Amino acid sequence: MPELRKDPIVGRWVIISVERGKRPADFSSPSIKRKAGGFCPFCPGNEYTTPNEIMAFRPPGAGFTGWTLRVVPNKFPALQIHGDLGKTAEGMYDRMNGIGAHEVIIETPVHTESLSTMSLKRINDVLWAYYLRLQDLKRDKRFKYVLIFKNEGEAAGATLEHSHTQLIALPIVPALVKEEFESAKKYYDLKERCIFCDIITQELEDGRRVIYQNEGYIAIAPFAPRAPFETWILPKEHQSFFQPRNNDFTGLAEILQRTLKQLDAVLDVPPYNFIIHTSPFNEEENEFYRWHIEITPKLTKIAGFEWGSGFFINSVPPEEAARFMREAKVDG
Amino acid sequence: MPELRKDPIVGRWVIISVERGKRPADFSSPSIKRKAGGFCPFCPGNEYTTPNEIMAFRPPGAGFTGWTLRVVPNKFPALQIHGDLGKTAEGMYDRMNGIGAHEVIIETPVHTESLSTMSLKRINDVLWAYYLRLQDLKRDKRFKYVLIFKNEGEAAGATLEHSHTQLIALPIVPALVKEEFESAKKYYDLKERCIFCDIITQELEDGRRVIYQNEGYIAIAPFAPRAPFETWILPKEHQSFFQPRNNDFTGLAEILQRTLKQLDAVLDVPPYNFIIHTSPFNEEENEFYRWHIEITPKLTKIAGFEWGSGFFINSVPPEEAARFMREAKVDG
Repeated sequence: MPELRKDPIVGRWVIISVERGKRPADFSSPSIKRKAGGFCPFCPGNEYTTPNEIMAFRPPGAGFTGWTLRVVPNKFPALQIHGDLGKTAEGMYDRMNGIGAHEVIIETPVHTESLSTMSLKRINDVLWAYYLRLQDLKRDKRFKYVLIFKNEGEAAGATLEHSHTQLIALPIVPALVKEEFESAKKYYDLKERCIFCDIITQELEDGRRVIYQNEGYIAIAPFAPRAPFETWILPKEHQSFFQPRNNDFTGLAEILQRTLKQLDAVLDVPPYNFIIHTSPFNEEENEFYRWHIEITPKLTKIAGFEWGSGFFINSVPPEEAARFMREAKVDG
Repeated sequence: MPELRKDPIVGRWVIISVERGKRPADFSSPSIKRKAGGFCPFCPGNEYTTPNEIMAFRPPGAGFTGWTLRVVPNKFPALQIHGDLGKTAEGMYDRMNGIGAHEVIIETPVHTESLSTMSLKRINDVLWAYYLRLQDLKRDKRFKYVLIFKNEGEAAGATLEHSHTQLIALPIVPALVKEEFESAKKYYDLKERCIFCDIITQELEDGRRVIYQNEGYIAIAPFAPRAPFETWILPKEHQSFFQPRNNDFTGLAEILQRTLKQLDAVLDVPPYNFIIHTSPFNEEENEFYRWHIEITPKLTKIAGFEWGSGFFINSVPPEEAARFMREAKVDG
């Protein structure tokens, strides 16, 4: 019997279609294989082909091309950094200028590495880069939100294969984040508890949907996932805004890489998207929302129907997805 | 300068990225070409390969294989028709049995026809079939909503090329429809006017986003479209639930086919999805919501990022999309 499940945060119902139940091998997404050799604007030596560097990490004594991480503006930005918001009405409609920042975090100088294969030290740096960019962009009063997201693989929307993350700073809060944030607030008003705390407590007691945990973080398959193998990583302690734990990103780097390795093992290095959901700038500190990372392997091609209805049919129950991931053999 | 625009109904902001502005020819979606010859379970003579017929149209005197339209259960249904809802809690979570109907409307006996190329009489029949199935499924008190949708082309999720529509009857209202419905209700509470009436009035006065209109219906590019060439068809008079106009679907058949022909002309027969949004069964008659059809050509492959954020970047301003469509040369 298929099942209808409700996401406890945003209230969206999804079908968990066990009848159509699929095993990981049934998903024929293209494996991601990076090739060295061609021209790549993100490789060392080609720094001149990107817009001017916003930030970079270089070991002591390294020259300009000796960076280990770089942040640069997107060469084809969706939004533009200069100007005022120019909020205006057009009859009953609302619009504003497309002001914002659109940046690229080049995670490594090594073309063939990915977040699954690079050193933990490097992922640590990537997470610090996210954090430092958030702290910097927050000072711009025009911005309400920074969306940090990664498209891994062409099928997930990547146009360059060199491992990178993107961020978009926005004068508005994206619809789904806003919905989540407001629902979490309502839950808190009703119960005086953070809904994410309640979810983590229940998941730890139940255990079936827990993929992995370390001291500071937990990776779970959510109760009502929209897509097969959707995975969330959350801090175990309350943190409303994306930040390190005890001034350290090591634990997050470890669980993020471990989870991606598990996905790679189960789904043969699938394309995926991940997105960090965090509190908006003007409500950074609160008791009701907890930042988290949502990872979605790109396994199915349908989109228009889901876009148009907000209704999802998922052929892999999260309990099974979590079990496959827990049982995956990964090093480390 | 790119622009941020807010959908007046659900409040979702999107970027209209004129800098990245694309012309129709920049979208390289695969053209849909149907081939006769292979085995097709939806072709006449193969009726025995589908589950038992729910409904069919046959001209007087036609035999079993002489149908012009058939409705059959989906052979691999996402939901199952027999059983009770079994609503239960699992700790803080909510679930119910996957009860529902999943049907296929086989629109024509001719394998190579599509909604763009079949006769208007045939489209008329297709719309009547939608209506009759809605009326029938409404009598099942377990159902709150029927989602009618079409995946045209493999890239849009179709697994069989013979032209067909699907419907899913649900014991819940899908998230986006619910959001739209509730927002429209709030608007009405505030202004005593239907938001869809206000949109149509403004669009007709402005004209830039009007694609086509006939006596009863209007096709527009919405002000804040999520995707290039997103198109809505709405009745000009207030109708909260999907229904014919003066007991006749001719006008709707005409504008639907005309709009699809325009899309075919501009985008070289693109894959697309369409979805009918209508009021839920328990609030069929109301003053604030208007049923409509949302058509989205499947031109871009990214989905995970949009799924995760509810935030869309659209490289074609709706004013330009509407102009391209208006100027398209189509017969009829």
